[in-house]
Amino acid sequence: MKKVLLIHGPNLNLTGQREPGIYGSDTLAAINAEVVAKCERLGMSCAVFQSNVEGALIDRIHAAREDCAAIIINAGAYTHYSYALRDAIASVRLPCVEVHMSNVHAREEFRHKSVIGPVCAGVIAGFGKHSYLLAVDAVKAIIG
Amino acid sequence: MKKVLLIHGPNLNLTGQREPGIYGSDTLAAINAEVVAKCERLGMSCAVFQSNVEGALIDRIHAAREDCAAIIINAGAYTHYSYALRDAIASVRLPCVEVHMSNVHAREEFRHKSVIGPVCAGVIAGFGKHSYLLAVDAVKAIIG
Amino acid sequence: MKKVLLIHGPNLNLTGQREPGIYGSDTLAAINAEVVAKCERLGMSCAVFQSNVEGALIDRIHAAREDCAAIIINAGAYTHYSYALRDAIASVRLPCVEVHMSNVHAREEFRHKSVIGPVCAGVIAGFGKHSYLLAVDAVKAIIG
Amino acid sequence: MKKVLLIHGPNLNLTGQREPGIYGSDTLAAINAEVVAKCERLGMSCAVFQSNVEGALIDRIHAAREDCAAIIINAGAYTHYSYALRDAIASVRLPCVEVHMSNVHAREEFRHKSVIGPVCAGVIAGFGKHSYLLAVDAVKAIIG
Amino acid sequence: MKKVLLIHGPNLNLTGQREPGIYGSDTLAAINAEVVAKCERLGMSCAVFQSNVEGALIDRIHAAREDCAAIIINAGAYTHYSYALRDAIASVRLPCVEVHMSNVHAREEFRHKSVIGPVCAGVIAGFGKHSYLLAVDAVKAIIG
Amino acid sequence: MKKVLLIHGPNLNLTGQREPGIYGSDTLAAINAEVVAKCERLGMSCAVFQSNVEGALIDRIHAAREDCAAIIINAGAYTHYSYALRDAIASVRLPCVEVHMSNVHAREEFRHKSVIGPVCAGVIAGFGKHSYLLAVDAVKAIIG
Amino acid sequence: MKKVLLIHGPNLNLTGQREPGIYGSDTLAAINAEVVAKCERLGMSCAVFQSNVEGALIDRIHAAREDCAAIIINAGAYTHYSYALRDAIASVRLPCVEVHMSNVHAREEFRHKSVIGPVCAGVIAGFGKHSYLLAVDAVKAIIG
Amino acid sequence: MKKVLLIHGPNLNLTGQREPGIYGSDTLAAINAEVVAKCERLGMSCAVFQSNVEGALIDRIHAAREDCAAIIINAGAYTHYSYALRDAIASVRLPCVEVHMSNVHAREEFRHKSVIGPVCAGVIAGFGKHSYLLAVDAVKAIIG
Amino acid sequence: MKKVLLIHGPNLNLTGQREPGIYGSDTLAAINAEVVAKCERLGMSCAVFQSNVEGALIDRIHAAREDCAAIIINAGAYTHYSYALRDAIASVRLPCVEVHMSNVHAREEFRHKSVIGPVCAGVIAGFGKHSYLLAVDAVKAIIG
Amino acid sequence: MKKVLLIHGPNLNLTGQREPGIYGSDTLAAINAEVVAKCERLGMSCAVFQSNVEGALIDRIHAAREDCAAIIINAGAYTHYSYALRDAIASVRLPCVEVHMSNVHAREEFRHKSVIGPVCAGVIAGFGKHSYLLAVDAVKAIIG
Amino acid sequence: MKKVLLIHGPNLNLTGQREPGIYGSDTLAAINAEVVAKCERLGMSCAVFQSNVEGALIDRIHAAREDCAAIIINAGAYTHYSYALRDAIASVRLPCVEVHMSNVHAREEFRHKSVIGPVCAGVIAGFGKHSYLLAVDAVKAIIG
Amino acid sequence: MKKVLLIHGPNLNLTGQREPGIYGSDTLAAINAEVVAKCERLGMSCAVFQSNVEGALIDRIHAAREDCAAIIINAGAYTHYSYALRDAIASVRLPCVEVHMSNVHAREEFRHKSVIGPVCAGVIAGFGKHSYLLAVDAVKAIIG
Repeated sequence: MKKVLLIHGPNLNLTGQREPGIYGSDTLAAINAEVVAKCERLGMSCAVFQSNVEGALIDRIHAAREDCAAIIINAGAYTHYSYALRDAIASVRLPCVEVHMSNVHAREEFRHKSVIGPVCAGVIAGFGKHSYLLAVDAVKAIIG
Repeated sequence: MKKVLLIHGPNLNLTGQREPGIYGSDTLAAINAEVVAKCERLGMSCAVFQSNVEGALIDRIHAAREDCAAIIINAGAYTHYSYALRDAIASVRLPCVEVHMSNVHAREEFRHKSVIGPVCAGVIAGFGKHSYLLAVDAVKAIIG
Repeated sequence: MKKVLLIHGPNLNLTGQREPGIYGSDTLAAINAEVVAKCERLGMSCAVFQSNVEGALIDRIHAAREDCAAIIINAGAYTHYSYALRDAIASVRLPCVEVHMSNVHAREEFRHKSVIGPVCAGVIAGFGKHSYLLAVDAVKAIIG
Repeated sequence: MKKVLLIHGPNLNLTGQREPGIYGSDTLAAINAEVVAKCERLGMSCAVFQSNVEGALIDRIHAAREDCAAIIINAGAYTHYSYALRDAIASVRLPCVEVHMSNVHAREEFRHKSVIGPVCAGVIAGFGKHSYLLAVDAVKAIIG
Repeated sequence: MKKVLLIHGPNLNLTGQREPGIYGSDTLAAINAEVVAKCERLGMSCAVFQSNVEGALIDRIHAAREDCAAIIINAGAYTHYSYALRDAIASVRLPCVEVHMSNVHAREEFRHKSVIGPVCAGVIAGFGKHSYLLAVDAVKAIIG
Repeated sequence: MKKVLLIHGPNLNLTGQREPGIYGSDTLAAINAEVVAKCERLGMSCAVFQSNVEGALIDRIHAAREDCAAIIINAGAYTHYSYALRDAIASVRLPCVEVHMSNVHAREEFRHKSVIGPVCAGVIAGFGKHSYLLAVDAVKAIIG
Repeated sequence: MKKVLLIHGPNLNLTGQREPGIYGSDTLAAINAEVVAKCERLGMSCAVFQSNVEGALIDRIHAAREDCAAIIINAGAYTHYSYALRDAIASVRLPCVEVHMSNVHAREEFRHKSVIGPVCAGVIAGFGKHSYLLAVDAVKAIIG
Repeated sequence: MKKVLLIHGPNLNLTGQREPGIYGSDTLAAINAEVVAKCERLGMSCAVFQSNVEGALIDRIHAAREDCAAIIINAGAYTHYSYALRDAIASVRLPCVEVHMSNVHAREEFRHKSVIGPVCAGVIAGFGKHSYLLAVDAVKAIIG
Repeated sequence: MKKVLLIHGPNLNLTGQREPGIYGSDTLAAINAEVVAKCERLGMSCAVFQSNVEGALIDRIHAAREDCAAIIINAGAYTHYSYALRDAIASVRLPCVEVHMSNVHAREEFRHKSVIGPVCAGVIAGFGKHSYLLAVDAVKAIIG
Repeated sequence: MKKVLLIHGPNLNLTGQREPGIYGSDTLAAINAEVVAKCERLGMSCAVFQSNVEGALIDRIHAAREDCAAIIINAGAYTHYSYALRDAIASVRLPCVEVHMSNVHAREEFRHKSVIGPVCAGVIAGFGKHSYLLAVDAVKAIIG
Repeated sequence: MKKVLLIHGPNLNLTGQREPGIYGSDTLAAINAEVVAKCERLGMSCAVFQSNVEGALIDRIHAAREDCAAIIINAGAYTHYSYALRDAIASVRLPCVEVHMSNVHAREEFRHKSVIGPVCAGVIAGFGKHSYLLAVDAVKAIIG
Repeated sequence: MKKVLLIHGPNLNLTGQREPGIYGSDTLAAINAEVVAKCERLGMSCAVFQSNVEGALIDRIHAAREDCAAIIINAGAYTHYSYALRDAIASVRLPCVEVHMSNVHAREEFRHKSVIGPVCAGVIAGFGKHSYLLAVDAVKAIIG
């Protein structure tokens, strides 16, 4: 059974509590549970990781080389400047789906640019928790 | 039964023939058939429209006010400069999902900017024909 | 009797329905009627044309060489990128007044730049339907 | 009877003498007389003020809070950099019409940007002295 | 006998009438006749198309896949912003020569950039109607 | 007893009346009184000056060389473009504290840049009238 | 008794040792002691935290939601690029005062931009250790 | 006898006192005396004017139309942003020499751009008080 | 018999040896021979010059004033920054055709800008050695 | 015996595994061993540290003040945006050599800028593992 | 007797022949003679050098270290991009006056920037041959 | 025995005399001698060339195709704008090491960009004469 790594970056631990007008009121735990369940329904397993530390996210991505077949990542604000995260994703050579709950293109200018985008397979943004669930489908389509 | 309008912009009529390395080898007709079928499985109907004429795309979007509940649009290269298309989407006040088959962020610089993004609900890019299919799910999540 | 060509660009067919907070609630037909009436009061006739197709607007401007003495144009979003429209206006060598119902300078950054402005006689923006009516006076002042 | 404040900024005292190819040969006094007369025909009074001193223009705008219902301003070159004038206009909360005799968009690049535009109701540019007269109509349409 | 598609973009239908100081006084019909004659002298046939509609130009380029061996295109002002036209040219995979009658590099800044240039074989600009005739030679050199 | 010069730039005479949502409802006179009182409590005297005229502010700064030990300045919108004011501050060689009542970094882009900042000792922004009172403490810390 | 969180970002642990010409010779411990003492004099308590790890700063800010009423932050160089820190501050919805010991506007260009500024209540910069002490007063003024 | 107008802009009244490392130790009065004497030696008279008020400088330039044959101007920091001063110089149509005591190109970036340069006959910068004296020679060469 | 000057700039002496994928395998001598022959067929003579030294190219262009009627120039990389070459071309007032063997617009960004283009009659790029041969025809069309 | 600190930033732990086409196939451990051996041959000792955490790198640099005489750093992607790392290097006042295995100037645009470069003694890039070994020589030349 | 080096850069050998509307009709030889004569009147000698070769200009500047006390340079178009010339001027540590016959600030944008300006003592531009003569006076004032 | 070409660009002939604070006091001859000696110690020969003429540098690089195995180049200021030099290096297809004695990244902005960097194998900067000596080692590592 193929394993998907679901990674959440900075401030996403507050999901459900932080700016619910933008991010909805589901907690991260609830969303994770839905993602894990959907993965299993599709015959995949799912490992979940959240950290506010850029380097910890990099460490976790590196570790994925061992046993994961794909990555779903919401890199939070690191999306916009962490070239280190970009290099991490590129270096593990796994298909990676960039996810955002909000439509980053309808927000501040600095959120319009993704430095990880060019090394990801694709991006899904704007659909709240459904962005994650759609990403599971996308991963399934890629890794079969 | 709610109706979804699926709009394809310039050059997408050649899908399956044009640069298959980027866009895959499914024809647009084949993709449309899959989208329509998926809509129906989810209890929605789907109208399809393709044109290379910017104004014709605008006309079709306007018409959607009558009987559509949501729009899925792959605006092709108009994505990057057609503020007229943006105004059209904004004016009909329907939830709109921006779709791209390729990962536009991994291609030429000019493809990194979407002028329609800020008036869409969200974006799905990079998954070939699956971008469209995921958009159907996204629309379903939005309009219920 | 001199004839004025009144041209409306993309999405202006929805005037009165689209974002009334910005554009007011008068329909385009109602505005056109007021403009035509005012032209006639000032001893001019008025031909009206609307299209969402950039090339159709260009065609109509070309045709104005035959029998029109001036142009009033609200080019909608084409104002901001249609160098083709600019060339069309320059090529017919008729005095042209650029009109906007909203104050484009108080809206999104991209609306601050007019590519047709340099080949127009002047611009009137921000007064709702009155922008058009003032443009009739401006045309009268120019062509006598 | 509602009073309109007509403000002329730097160098406009030379109107009729300065670069007549651009600004026409009517003196400022002559233009002012026409504006005042038109205001009165429309049932409004008109106070006129010209200064080359940025701060004096600000002082006069502040004073307008007492007895004026609207402002017509040709800020001359201050249009392009006086954020202080912009703040003054914003602070008195009166409808303000930005006027230029020449078509600023067909001149030097620096004249294409108006820093006062975003706090004005609208702009009229390019019609010589008629820009002022049209502005009176515009004001009438706004304050009734 | 190989067929060349000669495409003229927006406002070029006015050639000979529009700004003769820049574009010369030969009509488009006269130029087309010269181009067709030269093609035939060189053992090629030539199909001619002009439209002011961006999408119509794209449609015609698509159709060229059927029976043309090369394209000569003067895209007029679309040269400077139509990424859709660029995609159309790229998608048909025919050698394409970009042509301008005027020396675009000696005109306004916005005319210095060609968005179709990177997908063309080469460019010829500045020689009036001879730009087209030289392009026929260039095409001959490419397709033999 | 050391004297502090408190300078207010353009539009600040309207403080308490102008945009109270941003600037609070205390009048400038009331704020001045609090600042003067605080200076005196700290063993300093305070001279107050307000003008909308850039040159008058410069004149007053020059005069400070005679009898002042420090300057507190809210340069209003001149903050963002008056290099002349900057030169004035630099030329008198007195410690100068830049003050803003609002958080300029949370407002329009043009308010993010201070041309006087590089020649001031420091900046205090965002605390309403308290910005001024804190500046008195800052001056005290600097001049002892 | 309300609690204030005092946060120091990267390299500030070296305060007093690092570039004393810019930052003074008081150690961070000494400054912290002064801040804590001042908080207590004003009837507030103060928790202090320093880390060079961006994510650790974010974690600490999150934790402040539990028991703090305000934040004083010197984010060091993270001020200029850590959008993740910005999101953390925005997400806890506590009043936050941005502090710098040096006048960042008189130093390198990259230090002129604060990405956390727009989500803070205000900023105090340039007064050495007094920047912190003034921030305590500012916080007191805000939270009473 | 032809009259030359010598104009000094903001902060130049402090010449000799302000930053002598940059501007030398001659007072403005001493420099003026040298300029006047040189003008007289060359058979010209010289009127001198200094103000820190942008509008007052404009007024004085306007007045020069009456009896002056040329202008020598050191516009101080207004050099870099006063488009109003530029318009004033352009409007009086007198030959104008731009003068700077320091080499503005070797100082801060903002001093590298002169907005009045394009409407002056020429510029002399970097030679201390000699910049003014050379300008007298330059004026003599122009007006004979 | 009119003489054409054919000038080759830096690194073109290596043509045929350098990057044949871009420049083809004909040596410069071979290309020159073809150009000379074609000139003679068209009743013109041709002088050839190559140098890697910017100033030597300028000297040769100056000398062309004596006996040449037109210039064909491939300025190599000097195309992109040699304003001195531009001035040389402008100063001799001969019609000049800019030539490139490769399609510079499809290569690195820095090759997209020609500083000599604005003073040339036209440009031909992208057709290998045929670019030169087409330039001979272009010159013939210009000088008859 | 002087000690050199060798620091590796994010993703460099994967050296030898990650993109061997760019970084070669030597593992980081192997490279470290070579560096340590070379240091010893040159009479220096060498401490090695790698972390993906920006703050951990800063901590280690701070610690170097105690017992190190120089630093060799390959900051990975942090090179391009970590102003915090830059401040850390500047604060310890040790000679620092910036190292890259690949030629960063021949890769993506974002890798062309080093924010740590201005506070380093020099840079060595492009020679694979030899970049490190050359840096040891460079350090030896600096600290003797 | 102190010697002045007068250097003319590219295309200036054509002075008097090239674009007389901009540069006047005096030949370079005539101007040189006037400069030499003026130097001698002021008790200085003058060596003259012109070359179109950037490196030759550099060589001549280097040689000036031997026997010259100052440099007057009209670097022609090299002014705008020759950082090598800039380094040459800086390296000889002689006072250098930058001269232009035309007012470069009133011409094309690229002529507004001088890369040699920051290492010169000052600049004189816009006075035709008098620019050179004024420069002699300027040099006299500097080297006495 | 493999031969290395050592090339010095503009102004480097003055090394040891020019700005010793930046470049050290060793003459170029002394440095060359050390480089040659080191090459020989490593079993390579070394040819040395210096010129201030861009084209002469290009000529010498071309000649290296005959008998050299690698190039070490300090292109001086040409580093920052000579695309012709870049093309020369690219065309000879020899490994090339870019060298700078000073740390160009700690100097003026214009020195931060190398146009030759992308076609070199690597860069060594900031170590005075040791930059050259390290480059010999780098070359040895490359060509064995």
